[in-house]
Amino acid sequence: MKTNPSITRRLWSHRLTQRCAHGNTQTSGRTKMATENRNPEIRKDSVNNRLVILSPARSRRPSDFKSKSQAKSDSSPSSNAQPQCPFCAGNEHQCAPEIFRFPEDSTSDWKVRVIENLYPALSRELQVKSNHEEYCQATGTAVEVSLGGFGFHDVIIESPIHSVHLPDLSPAGVAVVLLAYKKRIEQLCAVDSISYIQVFKNHGATAGASMSHSHSQILALPVIPTTASNRLNTMKEHHNQTGKCSLCNINTHKLLINESTHFISISPFASTFPFETWIVPRYHSAHYHQLDEDKAIDLGGLLKLTLQKLSLQLNDPPYNLMIHTSPLHIASSELPYSHWYIQIVPQLSTLGGFEMGTGCYINPVFPQDAAKILRDVQVPNKE
Amino acid sequence: MKTNPSITRRLWSHRLTQRCAHGNTQTSGRTKMATENRNPEIRKDSVNNRLVILSPARSRRPSDFKSKSQAKSDSSPSSNAQPQCPFCAGNEHQCAPEIFRFPEDSTSDWKVRVIENLYPALSRELQVKSNHEEYCQATGTAVEVSLGGFGFHDVIIESPIHSVHLPDLSPAGVAVVLLAYKKRIEQLCAVDSISYIQVFKNHGATAGASMSHSHSQILALPVIPTTASNRLNTMKEHHNQTGKCSLCNINTHKLLINESTHFISISPFASTFPFETWIVPRYHSAHYHQLDEDKAIDLGGLLKLTLQKLSLQLNDPPYNLMIHTSPLHIASSELPYSHWYIQIVPQLSTLGGFEMGTGCYINPVFPQDAAKILRDVQVPNKE
Repeated sequence: MKTNPSITRRLWSHRLTQRCAHGNTQTSGRTKMATENRNPEIRKDSVNNRLVILSPARSRRPSDFKSKSQAKSDSSPSSNAQPQCPFCAGNEHQCAPEIFRFPEDSTSDWKVRVIENLYPALSRELQVKSNHEEYCQATGTAVEVSLGGFGFHDVIIESPIHSVHLPDLSPAGVAVVLLAYKKRIEQLCAVDSISYIQVFKNHGATAGASMSHSHSQILALPVIPTTASNRLNTMKEHHNQTGKCSLCNINTHKLLINESTHFISISPFASTFPFETWIVPRYHSAHYHQLDEDKAIDLGGLLKLTLQKLSLQLNDPPYNLMIHTSPLHIASSELPYSHWYIQIVPQLSTLGGFEMGTGCYINPVFPQDAAKILRDVQVPNKE
Repeated sequence: MKTNPSITRRLWSHRLTQRCAHGNTQTSGRTKMATENRNPEIRKDSVNNRLVILSPARSRRPSDFKSKSQAKSDSSPSSNAQPQCPFCAGNEHQCAPEIFRFPEDSTSDWKVRVIENLYPALSRELQVKSNHEEYCQATGTAVEVSLGGFGFHDVIIESPIHSVHLPDLSPAGVAVVLLAYKKRIEQLCAVDSISYIQVFKNHGATAGASMSHSHSQILALPVIPTTASNRLNTMKEHHNQTGKCSLCNINTHKLLINESTHFISISPFASTFPFETWIVPRYHSAHYHQLDEDKAIDLGGLLKLTLQKLSLQLNDPPYNLMIHTSPLHIASSELPYSHWYIQIVPQLSTLGGFEMGTGCYINPVFPQDAAKILRDVQVPNKE
């Protein structure tokens, strides 16, 4: 992994310079030295069976390439009114069909719209009668397996206003987005051949977004993808060995960032990316769509705070947000080992051949240091 | 995955415009239409157990972000002489210690140098007595596993001249680089606690390179990384079920690009990236370092041709090259199912939350189309 040198510098120097303008506490020089002098360490987590090399020395590499500009430059709109943005209020006719909106009876004053993706990765129209069975049979012995690309690919427009991003909403406003995910997942549960649903958000072009208007996406798949099945197998094995759910008992020692009534935000023990952050329910729950309204507002507050802190500390970085849940059509009672959570990954580094070849990431920032820094970020109260 | 729109356009339009200047055959409009109208398809391969969604529709998405410039701008040197480049001949004193050079008795006229990485991800000095045993014990029941970051991280400087890139060398020149990998792996085989070696090359900043002088890297790890163990398990299962090695019997129908005496280049059936290319030995071999001198020259020629074709077709894209081999300290006779190969991935798209969340990639270019295009690329003869 190549960490962008300008970003690496910012990780440590930002709070000493730009952050002062926001009245934040400064990171002490001692913290910086202590973390840079650590020995490298290889860690493996109990949730995803992921390997990571924690290696602060890597961040000191020089580069003779020009630094990329990131963050603001690739994600901020030039003004509120964007006549050519199909996600803005007033341009609804430019979009693919709407699935629903919140509030349901709203007209131009909608808060969130869930629409079909105009350029879907999967097709909701493909014939899939027995498709799934064929696939399951085929995986048994065939050298290669192919399955028609049936599935649903939807977009959640998080605000009618171009310049309003997710953490700009109130906790209750973020909850409306979270409840839109829930409702759409519940609708897709009715489709027998859908096995797994991935909710994700790409913020900024270098995080994979093609539109700057704040939005997230839902992909409903006819198969359980590799990362999810690896995670479920790892958590199941852990439960078999210890009798415990690994996320109910997640290590928060020096790793806790914040907590709310029902959720915690932490830097995971084996963070694969600098400042990777997880938001985990404090109660056991296998499926995201079990979220109720009260908990959605509580989660909305913690998610808003987390995104605000990452934005302040890392200068509005591009980021990816993923909800890791359990497969559909399996009762929660059968999943004592599976526990949903949200993963947020600021995009501060470029992946290279090592990560691609091995699946093992090199992270120059130890999670206990990232947690301390994020714990200490002061978010200005705008009220 | 977000495919850079300018790159996507280039995939199809390039040969109709710029490529004409090189005297290449044009891609017919029919090919373009046929490929863009395909239905999406989900594929799984028999080597890595990877899932991919082949979805040409994704490449038609608009974007309101500015396109990134790629390729030349981030990888080409401004001149041959780079006084500040430590990899250039004459600047050897700026580098970490040399491990060996080819030819061994050369002075300033070296062809390839293998040196320690000045900013290693792993430390060759950490004490690891029983470290590996502790790790293996710990993986049994512990919630979290941590291991001292012992390992070797070396750099292979592929040419003494700043502007000479790997495909600029003759087949015999490329072979010198390939034989340097072999020699270094053989040296590292002597270290008992090293389990796996990843050879990789990052070309261009967006592919993770921090130096533009042509080089590759070797990371020797005290564990077998996830991707390698998944691959070995998948290939072993396939061998158990069919009695065959999946790479000895790889599908070349419509997927073959080129072949040499001992190797083939193909677009893999479940290509996870547009124009992903594999170079596979036609003979069964578990370990890369079994490569002999004759086969190295043959491979040098095919690797040169492959990189030339990708560069011509895709306008010198950033790329990653990985050698996928077998774990050390296991005799080849015990690995009838494992077969080394080279994977080359041009970096044409940005990964997003879907890929990160699921491990499933969205590829807008069907491999049979990529293979046809690359088969047809005419490489000008400079002799």
